[in-house]
Amino acid sequence: MPLKTSWVATANSAETPFPLNNLPYGVFSTDGTEARCGVAIGDMILDMAAAEESGLIALADDPLFDVPYWNDLMAQGPAVWAALRERLTALLEEGSEARETVEPLLVPMAQATLHMPFMVSEYTDFYAGRHHATNIGTMFRGAENALPPNWLHIPIGYNGRASSVVVSDTPVRRPWGQLKGPNDDKPRFAPCARFDLELEMGAIVGVDSDGPITVQEADNNIFGYVLLNDWSARDIQAWEYQPLGPFQAKATATTISPWIVTKPALDPFRVDAPAREFELLDHLKDVGPMLYDIDLEVTLAPDGKPATTIARTNYKEMYYSSAQQLAHHTTAGSPMNVGDLLGSGTISGPEKTQRGSLIELSWGGKEPVQLDTGETRNFLEDGDTLTLHGSARGDGYTIGFGPCAGKILPALDDPYKR
Amino acid sequence: MPLKTSWVATANSAETPFPLNNLPYGVFSTDGTEARCGVAIGDMILDMAAAEESGLIALADDPLFDVPYWNDLMAQGPAVWAALRERLTALLEEGSEARETVEPLLVPMAQATLHMPFMVSEYTDFYAGRHHATNIGTMFRGAENALPPNWLHIPIGYNGRASSVVVSDTPVRRPWGQLKGPNDDKPRFAPCARFDLELEMGAIVGVDSDGPITVQEADNNIFGYVLLNDWSARDIQAWEYQPLGPFQAKATATTISPWIVTKPALDPFRVDAPAREFELLDHLKDVGPMLYDIDLEVTLAPDGKPATTIARTNYKEMYYSSAQQLAHHTTAGSPMNVGDLLGSGTISGPEKTQRGSLIELSWGGKEPVQLDTGETRNFLEDGDTLTLHGSARGDGYTIGFGPCAGKILPALDDPYKR
Repeated sequence: MPLKTSWVATANSAETPFPLNNLPYGVFSTDGTEARCGVAIGDMILDMAAAEESGLIALADDPLFDVPYWNDLMAQGPAVWAALRERLTALLEEGSEARETVEPLLVPMAQATLHMPFMVSEYTDFYAGRHHATNIGTMFRGAENALPPNWLHIPIGYNGRASSVVVSDTPVRRPWGQLKGPNDDKPRFAPCARFDLELEMGAIVGVDSDGPITVQEADNNIFGYVLLNDWSARDIQAWEYQPLGPFQAKATATTISPWIVTKPALDPFRVDAPAREFELLDHLKDVGPMLYDIDLEVTLAPDGKPATTIARTNYKEMYYSSAQQLAHHTTAGSPMNVGDLLGSGTISGPEKTQRGSLIELSWGGKEPVQLDTGETRNFLEDGDTLTLHGSARGDGYTIGFGPCAGKILPALDDPYKR
Repeated sequence: MPLKTSWVATANSAETPFPLNNLPYGVFSTDGTEARCGVAIGDMILDMAAAEESGLIALADDPLFDVPYWNDLMAQGPAVWAALRERLTALLEEGSEARETVEPLLVPMAQATLHMPFMVSEYTDFYAGRHHATNIGTMFRGAENALPPNWLHIPIGYNGRASSVVVSDTPVRRPWGQLKGPNDDKPRFAPCARFDLELEMGAIVGVDSDGPITVQEADNNIFGYVLLNDWSARDIQAWEYQPLGPFQAKATATTISPWIVTKPALDPFRVDAPAREFELLDHLKDVGPMLYDIDLEVTLAPDGKPATTIARTNYKEMYYSSAQQLAHHTTAGSPMNVGDLLGSGTISGPEKTQRGSLIELSWGGKEPVQLDTGETRNFLEDGDTLTLHGSARGDGYTIGFGPCAGKILPALDDPYKR
């Protein structure tokens, strides 16, 4: 599929992340206005609340877009999702008769503040990248026990904390936590010294379900994707995670990119999952290409200094798709709801430069990562800005996500002395 | 503190779970009416929506009680919680001048259907009962490694699934899941064969927080308590839980009792936590009695047959209080919200008859539990009704919670053949 041209001139380049082929959904505000739904096109945002109020878009009896989240639109279901995309394309394409009416409803992205694009109902994080799981397993349990016995049969996941999900550019404060190093004789309460990123994709559930669903149904129920950084306190994690999994190590923040890239925008980039070492059981079997060819990049910029790319990988390195994760999530009967967010798990490629976390890149702090500034990093330092980038490259166009960034603030002096 | 007498005659016995000393908060409906807030008194429910509409209760500018949840009242904060309790006591006490106005607003409990008393924001489950953790650890890892090294230093917990929390009397369907027994050479997808209960208390967060809070602040932020059964699929859990903790094993349902028993009702029953084997770090230190002397009982009734009491224990057997759990929950900076639910962890006493789960009572299925009907149980069978009971015994009065019950429905034939 080639670039679709728009009368919004900045949408017609091979490099813009937001051509007419994309049409991602976000929430924005400008000085003195309430946050509301918007659609990115080139360097502009279409004000969806205004478009609806003017009658240009009419999908439901009640207004859907004069709210700071896309949950109401999601709840309308896939037929309305498709109708909206069709209508937006008609309004914004080259030659559209609506241009004169729509043009005044465009807001320059440079003047906008972006907010969380949806209300997170519940947040689940998976561990479904094979290279990442192998790397972590090798460091923690030795190469011969790297992958747990269940790993090749089910997408291992755990429930996370929805209240700590934040949008790109929200600063992230280094947490305190209980720690105990291998040579300490007792634990202590201290700021995290091994604060890390996890490069992931997030899938957003757009349809409620109540009971087990198939992989195909799960794929149908996914509304779209964002970039996701599951900030991780490795020293807190090492002390707390046995036997019930990570808890406070993952509670500080999870950052997502501000634009929900929808499934139709990503459809041309669908790819098959990797070859299966063991045949998956029927309820998890691949039923079509459900991963995506999306280039991913991690940059790290020390305070006031230029950024260095510390990793490049691709979403197609995952072993399980988000559809398989969502299907697995429902097997025991748990209801899933509009706005549930599923983190893919850290995405690492087979090469050292393709690893999606510092614990892998620095091999647990033993092989410091070299930055272009001359500095090195084992883990994140105060003042560092860590940014995830993602884009799928089409025939003369790009589907981008917008950056997923967070700057590390120093730990509080002592959170219990106030 | 003795029994406080009420003009509602059935509230004035030593045995009623709902004397004037209690005043627990629930959500109810009767035939043809919308679910709304109510307060239990004797065998009656005070219709709070009606009391508010009539002007008998006026705590805020907007109505608080004509909704099917207590979250709006909780969000008003502890001063309003106290004002409500004071007002309810004045309206319902013996000799109240309001009796004639209030009496028509009472609905017989026998005619009411009880609903979820609050909207669960997020659900966290802990593992903070020492006897339970020791029993489980002994079965899984041997007596010498029963308690993980971190257990005596932090309340171990994991995030659960809020969407699967249901109110007492909701049937619970036996889940399917991926299983692999120790002698199987590969996993299979099958109905759970080791479905279990976990006897717990649930603490409800009533105040938002955004950053680390102290144990005292955490205690202040707790609105009240319910009984909680964290249904557990032991065979699914055994296969999935390494390395990131339980997931689908705990996703089927978590049942809570229908009445929120508030902190002031429980205050006379506060007790100290047990002696500490290791001194807790400052941020988790005991700052007063924050456990409660609440008798707990588990009954099991096979389909159509009488119930047998299979366990009796007490909430004071916990090692960590809910306040310590909530404080720990905030250490890494996670925001906590009104409506967050914290499961205490399974409450077992030191004796065999005091164990709060069948896996402990039957010692992993090796020592079947004898029922009064002549049957035995290792785990739950289809048709069984499992009920938790809780009560604190005061001077001539009882603070009860109402039963926390669920009947086991057979597994679906095959959830993926529809």
